[in-house]
Amino acid sequence: MSPDSLVSFYASSKVIVTGGLGFIGSNLVRRLVESGADVLVIDANIPNTGANAANLRGIEDRLRVKILDLRDAEEIAPLLPEHQVVFNLAGTVSHLDSMTNPLCDMDANVHGQIVLLEACRRHIPKARIIFASTRQIYGRPVSCPVDESHPIRPIDVNGIHKVAAESYHTLYHQVYGMPTVSLRLTNTYGPRMRVKDARQTFLGIWVSSILQNKIFEVWGGHQKRDLTYVDDAVEALLIAGACPAVQGCVFNIGGSLPITLTSLAECLVSVAGTGAFAIKEFPPERLRIDIGDYFADDRKFRQLTGWAPRFTLEDGLTRTIEYFRDCLRDYV
Amino acid sequence: MSPDSLVSFYASSKVIVTGGLGFIGSNLVRRLVESGADVLVIDANIPNTGANAANLRGIEDRLRVKILDLRDAEEIAPLLPEHQVVFNLAGTVSHLDSMTNPLCDMDANVHGQIVLLEACRRHIPKARIIFASTRQIYGRPVSCPVDESHPIRPIDVNGIHKVAAESYHTLYHQVYGMPTVSLRLTNTYGPRMRVKDARQTFLGIWVSSILQNKIFEVWGGHQKRDLTYVDDAVEALLIAGACPAVQGCVFNIGGSLPITLTSLAECLVSVAGTGAFAIKEFPPERLRIDIGDYFADDRKFRQLTGWAPRFTLEDGLTRTIEYFRDCLRDYV
Repeated sequence: MSPDSLVSFYASSKVIVTGGLGFIGSNLVRRLVESGADVLVIDANIPNTGANAANLRGIEDRLRVKILDLRDAEEIAPLLPEHQVVFNLAGTVSHLDSMTNPLCDMDANVHGQIVLLEACRRHIPKARIIFASTRQIYGRPVSCPVDESHPIRPIDVNGIHKVAAESYHTLYHQVYGMPTVSLRLTNTYGPRMRVKDARQTFLGIWVSSILQNKIFEVWGGHQKRDLTYVDDAVEALLIAGACPAVQGCVFNIGGSLPITLTSLAECLVSVAGTGAFAIKEFPPERLRIDIGDYFADDRKFRQLTGWAPRFTLEDGLTRTIEYFRDCLRDYV
Repeated sequence: MSPDSLVSFYASSKVIVTGGLGFIGSNLVRRLVESGADVLVIDANIPNTGANAANLRGIEDRLRVKILDLRDAEEIAPLLPEHQVVFNLAGTVSHLDSMTNPLCDMDANVHGQIVLLEACRRHIPKARIIFASTRQIYGRPVSCPVDESHPIRPIDVNGIHKVAAESYHTLYHQVYGMPTVSLRLTNTYGPRMRVKDARQTFLGIWVSSILQNKIFEVWGGHQKRDLTYVDDAVEALLIAGACPAVQGCVFNIGGSLPITLTSLAECLVSVAGTGAFAIKEFPPERLRIDIGDYFADDRKFRQLTGWAPRFTLEDGLTRTIEYFRDCLRDYV
């Protein structure tokens, strides 16, 4: 679908974005608001996640924001009627936090998802629901690139819970005919990502370190990854919400060509024009949940929808650095 | 392992059985008590599950029973020390209940499992933990027999939660080195199963109908299934707890040769010497979560441990009918 047809699709839509204060969520909300959509953000504003009020700065009066935990069924239900699309991006993604507090991770990623889907089933069963799933559910790839038929073998509690959350979405399509779709996102980066620490993406702490003249650490360095610039991920989400052919399916979303972490660090320093890094051995508590190489085979989504990433890695990193150079204080 | 060597292994063991008031749990407890094991049963005694005080009748003074929800971390923790083996059979298995109340299913099968495993990690990290997983996690088989590499595609909420529960066990082995093992049980039947309704197994309601001179319904009838007599499942669990080679793995447990439901009904009527059934179309709410044919390829467990089922279907059904003929009043 062309950007123009997406704009016209969403111009007259009432849309919910869960996790809309977060990194990908807020970038999506901005595109939706620009398209003229009527947007309701539902976000629990949980500490140590991507939620950040600065992410919606300047557009606060063009949308509705409800600070609310998805587990709160009584509050959620009356908000739903009349909405045609639900972008379901709420959740936590920290692998280490999920290992130190698995129940918290369950509350955010399992319990809340059940409540939301049950409420949608009762109140807006025809709404399109687009779930932000993750490559994390594959665990250590058997081989790359990884397509959607790769075994599901999460290697941390967060991954186990993301499997459950994605499975609910697929199940509610199969059993109740609800038009759900899940996108398994790879490493996504760009403006408004969490840069205070590595809870959301390792790239976050790299960017803030460069901008604060600190040496950042690259663990391992030889692992290959693909990366999606956030605008490309947002485009994929918008297409998934607009395109009937994808309903009931799960898709990988990839991005740039695979690159080693060391080359990625070099590229980041190059576009920033400054910065330095040190290659370090993996800390033991990270090594046990590291996945080695990962890059996605996302041809299924590309072929069905015509989506393709539009930003090169250099473009994306340049835009990211420029964004945080201007407003790092809001993020650290 | 021979029955004798199992007896001597467990004779001096302190063992926990979660779900020990239930069908498989209570049969396991009886074998353990006979072997001389020091047994603690932890069971939430949840209505509409397999829990039934009659299941432990006659041996109450030879074991300890704690009525307790696994979610109660403060109560669970002090019970664990000094136990060497945990047979983790607690949970609900009703597919329909999980669809009508997914949060209840999460509480029983996800939340409780996290609390138990975290408590074991802290207090008895070297204890062997044997988890009763289920064929339900495979969903509709691509082809039969189904081995352990078959895709995991549960088709109800209960299946999604059993995937999560099994995954925790595998993860806690990988990350913390805890000696866990999961057995994916197929349709298990025998004395002490729930016969009041089809919540645990369709065979239950068949047996109680025959013994109450009611016609029972066979839905579909052409679907093939394998069945495990409970003593064979108990033997597999005991071996899994005693055999170091199985740690960290998941195994299918099958049983008798595949049989269609119609032939199974005929066989049951034959061994009972009475009874009648009617073939019915699948009710719509069952059809959407039916899995078609299933039978397990369990060669991995057989080859590694020497286990094989010892009861023919006729033997197992005969023993089952005899048991419930004597004490049906305790189960309906």
